[in-house]
Amino acid sequence: MKKGSGVVERRIRVGLIGFGTIGTGVVRLLQEQRQRIRTRLGAHLEIVRIADIDVRRDRGVEVGAGVLTKDGRALVDDPAIDIVIELMGGYGLAREFVLRAVANGKSVVTANKALLAVHGAEIFAAVEAARVDIGFEASVGGGIPIIRTLRESLAADRNLALCGIVNGTANYILSRMAADGSEFADVLAAAQAAGLAEADPTFDIDGIDSAHKLALLIQLAFESSVEFSQLPVEGIRHITQLDIQLAREFGYAIKLLAIAKVEGRRIEARVHPTMVPRSHLLADVGGAFNAIAVEGEALGSSIYFGQGAGMMPTATAVAADVVEAARNILNGSRGRVAPLGYPLARQRRVALKPMADLSTEYYLRFLVVDRPNVLAKIAGILGKHRISIASMVQRESEAGAEVPIVMHTHQARERDLLAALAEIAVLPVVHAKPVFIRIENNPGQ
Amino acid sequence: MKKGSGVVERRIRVGLIGFGTIGTGVVRLLQEQRQRIRTRLGAHLEIVRIADIDVRRDRGVEVGAGVLTKDGRALVDDPAIDIVIELMGGYGLAREFVLRAVANGKSVVTANKALLAVHGAEIFAAVEAARVDIGFEASVGGGIPIIRTLRESLAADRNLALCGIVNGTANYILSRMAADGSEFADVLAAAQAAGLAEADPTFDIDGIDSAHKLALLIQLAFESSVEFSQLPVEGIRHITQLDIQLAREFGYAIKLLAIAKVEGRRIEARVHPTMVPRSHLLADVGGAFNAIAVEGEALGSSIYFGQGAGMMPTATAVAADVVEAARNILNGSRGRVAPLGYPLARQRRVALKPMADLSTEYYLRFLVVDRPNVLAKIAGILGKHRISIASMVQRESEAGAEVPIVMHTHQARERDLLAALAEIAVLPVVHAKPVFIRIENNPGQ
Repeated sequence: MKKGSGVVERRIRVGLIGFGTIGTGVVRLLQEQRQRIRTRLGAHLEIVRIADIDVRRDRGVEVGAGVLTKDGRALVDDPAIDIVIELMGGYGLAREFVLRAVANGKSVVTANKALLAVHGAEIFAAVEAARVDIGFEASVGGGIPIIRTLRESLAADRNLALCGIVNGTANYILSRMAADGSEFADVLAAAQAAGLAEADPTFDIDGIDSAHKLALLIQLAFESSVEFSQLPVEGIRHITQLDIQLAREFGYAIKLLAIAKVEGRRIEARVHPTMVPRSHLLADVGGAFNAIAVEGEALGSSIYFGQGAGMMPTATAVAADVVEAARNILNGSRGRVAPLGYPLARQRRVALKPMADLSTEYYLRFLVVDRPNVLAKIAGILGKHRISIASMVQRESEAGAEVPIVMHTHQARERDLLAALAEIAVLPVVHAKPVFIRIENNPGQ
Repeated sequence: MKKGSGVVERRIRVGLIGFGTIGTGVVRLLQEQRQRIRTRLGAHLEIVRIADIDVRRDRGVEVGAGVLTKDGRALVDDPAIDIVIELMGGYGLAREFVLRAVANGKSVVTANKALLAVHGAEIFAAVEAARVDIGFEASVGGGIPIIRTLRESLAADRNLALCGIVNGTANYILSRMAADGSEFADVLAAAQAAGLAEADPTFDIDGIDSAHKLALLIQLAFESSVEFSQLPVEGIRHITQLDIQLAREFGYAIKLLAIAKVEGRRIEARVHPTMVPRSHLLADVGGAFNAIAVEGEALGSSIYFGQGAGMMPTATAVAADVVEAARNILNGSRGRVAPLGYPLARQRRVALKPMADLSTEYYLRFLVVDRPNVLAKIAGILGKHRISIASMVQRESEAGAEVPIVMHTHQARERDLLAALAEIAVLPVVHAKPVFIRIENNPGQ
């Protein structure tokens, strides 16, 4: 195509694998913002091929004749394509297509956190060796530009800790429970009916998706990697309305957090429901929003907040990565920044701090028979295990009935806590398994 | 210097002009993080020259022999220097040095928002023509990576609005007033004594610094520019403890906001103290922190929060820009991204919406003699000007004494409001000038 000046306008040809919700959003965004992107890039971005098993469904976006194909393999082998967007999800074929595209000298953009959490080392090494680019902004925090921020903007500082609400579904459920007074199962069912939670919500509510994202954030922030399968992960299925209300009485909100801190040569990393002070910004992150707090040695605290999922927000992250990859192609500067911001060969493989060594404050809830001496008994066992109580709430009840005793402990070792709880759990006056929720008074620090 | 492999390690030579607080932080950070930066860059970053009028003072950082000079002009002319960091501030010499460095083919990093707000067009054009880079991350939001986010991460979306707490001094003063119950003058004096406010705090507390930053944010976010001298700016000197308390009763906090919204072919832009709902994230931004909220058509709301000033936080932004400029030199990709993310020639010069046309909710405070009919009189004048009252607080007092009447209006035109207030101000029962504070119920949207 000729421009007025007689200069041939350059074209960057993009292939998309996976024409689902996000893929449709990307096609729509690149069409709607075609002129803006062209102005910024000085070249024309064109989606020339889209591969999906379903080539018939109308997605509400216009696709040129011959663009749709069922053949993803042909797409990644097509020499006319400069950039491949992988939005098919999963580990198997996605891994194959990404590696093949890279081997073919193409830059890749993906939103696939599961793939990168599990096969990241292999993929990043291939990208470095081929001196192409891989963009994965959409894999963590939806439209929040946290990947680029960690990879480039915070590049001159040493990061000490990070903490994020990185799963929109879990945050939506906890936010609704806090707002409505409903129980977990009811909110989950309503969220599924409204399309806000998957039919199989395991990854979201059991913390696995958050752990995938945490594994990536750790690599970006700390130039280190941990064994993904060893990450301590706890979901939100056991959070009850009672706990949310009692947390509020203590001045806390319950959030599913992904936490990582540098501790000497080890990293403390964990995903679990956490009580955060209601005055902290993270406590105000409601609905399907995400937020990530980073603590840098020189920078101090910074927090990034936005839509953690959804068709168009996620599409903005994918499209920005495509623009970035295109810029590097146009400038002959592919591989300008390593996938993680530093050469993979310089990544440290570090040990996780065992959860038993964790030292934090705890919220404890016991369901007991309201009898004299029950409290003294529980407090005695806690004291024996070096756990001291900062504050306590005991609700009144009829004598002899079941009543919750709730405690906020001072900082204690998880090892000691578990030992104490095991002893308390077998007391005849204690009904139900004792509940504990970890507290972060300065999340992200 | 040779590496083990026998490959000569590349060096990037940096010159710094302005060895004040931030400059000292940059030198310290580049020394402390020397190895990290080297790993990320694959090259050695070296500060080879520092120019300042004071070459004797001990700044607590080590500087090699012969590095310090009084001659900034020689520094920008030194062919051995690849990147110039300008931290001297001001408009005159800073402009000359930046333009001369650019003309000499050097990339530039600056924290000088005043310079860019006033001479940005000239400087950005020179940078584009020379195909070098200019980094100015530190000019807005201290260590918050908002410039890169707007320039690159949000590149594929159309931004609709933005709103920021971008002056740490003003935010510190308002936060302290809210926390302590002190009056403006006392908090300012204490902040000056503690080194948290300048001896001449005009730029900070009169909103001028916020307006400089807003002028830059508008160019980055909307591909448009407005006439800086026409930006409506109002500072915080007139905010009283009474207003902060009454705002709280209405559910609001008072923040100095820089606001911009796209309205068709015009831009609505303004800096003034603003009431924001206490439930909004921006209301929780305390002390010297900054936060910037951006509303994108596809992305929706995203918010960036962090240290808005200070030696080390600001140094991280400068250092990250130096790393970026160095990367482009090493990759032969200088000028890869235009200073504003799009070619200056494509920038639209747009008209500002006149403040008289603003339509928003208002907080109004009148100091009146507590007599029958005063309220009816005021409400009557407001009604005549099409301003309706959403809620009202009238404090009790002894009969005949002065008493504040406080109102929260529905949405009204500023033109109508000013006409009504002018009429009310001259009523004999109204003492003192009526106070009005604009309300943003969805700041950033």
